[in-house]
Amino acid sequence: MPATTDDATDAPQAYRELLEHYRRYSNLNKASGVLSWDQQVMMPEGGAPARSQQLSTLSGLQHELLTDEAVGDALEALADADLSDEQAAVVREIRREYERSDAVPQELVEEVTATASEAIEVWEGAKADSDFSQFAPTLEKLVELRREIAAHIDPDREPYAVLFEEYEPYLDLETAERVLTRLREELVPLIEDIGESDVTLPRAFDGGSYSTDAQESLSRDILDRLNYDWERGRLDTSSHPFTSGSQFDCRVTTRFLEDDPLSALTATIHEFGHAFYNLGLSQDHYGDPLGESRDLSVHESQSRLWENHVGRSQPFWELIGDDVRETFDVDADDETLYEAANVVYDDNLIRVDADELTYHMHIIVRFEIERDLVNGDLDVEDVPEVWNDKYEQYLGIRPENDAEGCLQDIHWSYGNFGYFPTYTLGSVMAAQLYAAAEDDLGDLDGDIRAGEFEALQEWLRENVHRHGARYTTDELVEVATGESYTADYFLEYVTEKYGQLYDL
Amino acid sequence: MPATTDDATDAPQAYRELLEHYRRYSNLNKASGVLSWDQQVMMPEGGAPARSQQLSTLSGLQHELLTDEAVGDALEALADADLSDEQAAVVREIRREYERSDAVPQELVEEVTATASEAIEVWEGAKADSDFSQFAPTLEKLVELRREIAAHIDPDREPYAVLFEEYEPYLDLETAERVLTRLREELVPLIEDIGESDVTLPRAFDGGSYSTDAQESLSRDILDRLNYDWERGRLDTSSHPFTSGSQFDCRVTTRFLEDDPLSALTATIHEFGHAFYNLGLSQDHYGDPLGESRDLSVHESQSRLWENHVGRSQPFWELIGDDVRETFDVDADDETLYEAANVVYDDNLIRVDADELTYHMHIIVRFEIERDLVNGDLDVEDVPEVWNDKYEQYLGIRPENDAEGCLQDIHWSYGNFGYFPTYTLGSVMAAQLYAAAEDDLGDLDGDIRAGEFEALQEWLRENVHRHGARYTTDELVEVATGESYTADYFLEYVTEKYGQLYDL
Repeated sequence: MPATTDDATDAPQAYRELLEHYRRYSNLNKASGVLSWDQQVMMPEGGAPARSQQLSTLSGLQHELLTDEAVGDALEALADADLSDEQAAVVREIRREYERSDAVPQELVEEVTATASEAIEVWEGAKADSDFSQFAPTLEKLVELRREIAAHIDPDREPYAVLFEEYEPYLDLETAERVLTRLREELVPLIEDIGESDVTLPRAFDGGSYSTDAQESLSRDILDRLNYDWERGRLDTSSHPFTSGSQFDCRVTTRFLEDDPLSALTATIHEFGHAFYNLGLSQDHYGDPLGESRDLSVHESQSRLWENHVGRSQPFWELIGDDVRETFDVDADDETLYEAANVVYDDNLIRVDADELTYHMHIIVRFEIERDLVNGDLDVEDVPEVWNDKYEQYLGIRPENDAEGCLQDIHWSYGNFGYFPTYTLGSVMAAQLYAAAEDDLGDLDGDIRAGEFEALQEWLRENVHRHGARYTTDELVEVATGESYTADYFLEYVTEKYGQLYDL
Repeated sequence: MPATTDDATDAPQAYRELLEHYRRYSNLNKASGVLSWDQQVMMPEGGAPARSQQLSTLSGLQHELLTDEAVGDALEALADADLSDEQAAVVREIRREYERSDAVPQELVEEVTATASEAIEVWEGAKADSDFSQFAPTLEKLVELRREIAAHIDPDREPYAVLFEEYEPYLDLETAERVLTRLREELVPLIEDIGESDVTLPRAFDGGSYSTDAQESLSRDILDRLNYDWERGRLDTSSHPFTSGSQFDCRVTTRFLEDDPLSALTATIHEFGHAFYNLGLSQDHYGDPLGESRDLSVHESQSRLWENHVGRSQPFWELIGDDVRETFDVDADDETLYEAANVVYDDNLIRVDADELTYHMHIIVRFEIERDLVNGDLDVEDVPEVWNDKYEQYLGIRPENDAEGCLQDIHWSYGNFGYFPTYTLGSVMAAQLYAAAEDDLGDLDGDIRAGEFEALQEWLRENVHRHGARYTTDELVEVATGESYTADYFLEYVTEKYGQLYDL
């Protein structure tokens, strides 16, 4: 396999050395990815203690490789070098990773890892008892450690902005906040209107029981229809659906609920979107930034585009209606199935059970709270009340206890802050990309109804995937759509779609 | 998990540093093991190019960690240190690995890897064409490279002896040769007698077709009977059965042939033996030599003990006879099934299809040829003729072409020389260990017939597994059996067993 970056052979010696180091680092990352996939999908439970030592060794070596003096020296030598655009992009990406890693003492990183690994158990106990006060001291410690990390990276900026950049380096927090605030302002009244609508969408699958085998068979059929490349992929099950792998081997998992076949179906399509992105990255650039995916919002844009714009569309349900009726023996026409897949659950308190629309309110609550927490504008002990107030304000419902409130998600016990918003930012980007694809390709409904996904897939390959991390996120959106990042298309999409569905 | 080696905290600083380094090295080894398992069992074929880069990065880092200056310094500091027996064993093992790795230039190791990876394709082509001359130049190169490696490690000794130590560091080549020669001398006439016997054992499974599902279900039942710990293991399929993992998670694979259910059955039991060994290693010593298995002959003794002394025994077929009849709908009593599992195929040219007895002739042919090749006493071009002559001499059959002759095995194209004999040395050791266990526990037939394996398993745990690599191989045999390594028990076992079966 050619592991050169285009004109790497003509590049300065320092550039070649930098790439050499980075490729080893990248291969360790990918090896860790395989070990994690195995842990979640295949590993017998007894393997946990050994696996955590293996992963910890790999993670330590990754840090050492990335912050090696030779990397710093090469980056310094390249500061004013004459580089091609691609080379400059590679250096930009490696420099960013290097600087963040180098700024943070390894002991601090290990302390977060150790604290987080204990935190998960504490969170589980607190959630079981529905008692936030059990988790509060641990959360406080994690927030403090993360704040410390942010200060090492940049003591002069808002700590949450620094942490947010870990997941989303090129959409600044101001942009994120502008988009999230606009969504809140426009979605709250839309959701209220839906609540007041006379329309009740049919819950066509409620009350039935759907065998895992039948569901799996449908998931595989749908992956076939979406041209998932089985020679570079697999479908398995895990307790939480996820995607893992590279352009050579990218696997998806799903999860089957006996009483809700929509859950696995949408999860499978969502994960397909992630995998299809990775599988579209350049094989020639495996192991360097030009062969790596852009950050979390772009990744989520790919999963959401397939899950929502394709998988929850009317023509898609016309395409798969017969399969669904045959597989599950349900008595519902295409339109009814489509509507069932798009019910807005405005009485739902749980993020992972949320529909396409209210989902973003769940994200916005978390964003506002974690930002204030990290920036020191909210005390940990006040989280439950603020949480409940926001649910009441944005969704008109109030959790009755912490388990269905601020303890529902595991993410904070990982010590991750700044990650949640990327879910919504990605959905917004999905709508913008889909609109641009339609602009180029014409109305895609006919293609979807006919099961012809090639044109859309080629468009995504050409305009998003093949670039890897060559462009920054904002540049990539601009290159792909001709416009800067905007929530216009998302709001237009949901207003039209739910307006029709709920007769608004 | 306590990752200390007993009194490591009281040990000299250099000892603690040595262990620290070695644990990282060991975790990388184990991570590579997971990646290899995945490659053979789960990976979609497209993943190969990325996986080989990941494994190559890991292997390079393993070499760097093991030959790090700090390891050399620690070993030097510990040369005259006052160490406990266990600590001294740890240092002995690490020193051996360090010295071998440090002696060989990394470029040479990489050249072997590169040559071997091309060699596999060349071998496949040559085998398909049944034309050794296509493979000869590649084999010549691999032999030369290995000879060069041996010279780096010890230029004053027979190169094959040096290579043999890679797999079997503590049974010297003289011992190996003595045992193999004795086996040849005693087994050749025994096999001749069998050939001339009037007895024809029933081939009870011949001509039938056995579904993979039924075979898999039987393999799982048998693993249950053998107390395989599913919380630390898995059964999967792969093109060649193998075992992979540590004391926390040790997995087996098998392979199902539709026309031969004995193949999967014996392979499953064989791999169980390997896995049961690893699962019996000390968890407290995960990542240091006291928690690692002794070398290949000891490992093979564990697989062969279960495969042959248990799995091919008369009481075992009395135990599983009903299962087998029910699963496969065969009309044969226990005695007939036992006999079918022990047919001696004296007309078989293929090692992997060989029975328990003639198997060792296949090994001895390879041993004698590869030893002469590596030591420069045989020209590569003469291999086919010498091969065929030896088959005629030892087994009374002559291959008609290279594909069923010297091209049948892949091992030489891996560049591995010195590995084959460990198969036979392990079988010999299995008989000695089994005899010692019977000496301690009384006749085990009743236990096997009753499916009560606990006493034998406890004996193996106590006398072999828990020691890890604390003792050298010869010491371990002595500790476990009270005698030095000997072929007496093996010869006694086969003479008695096949004497009865073939009425000699």
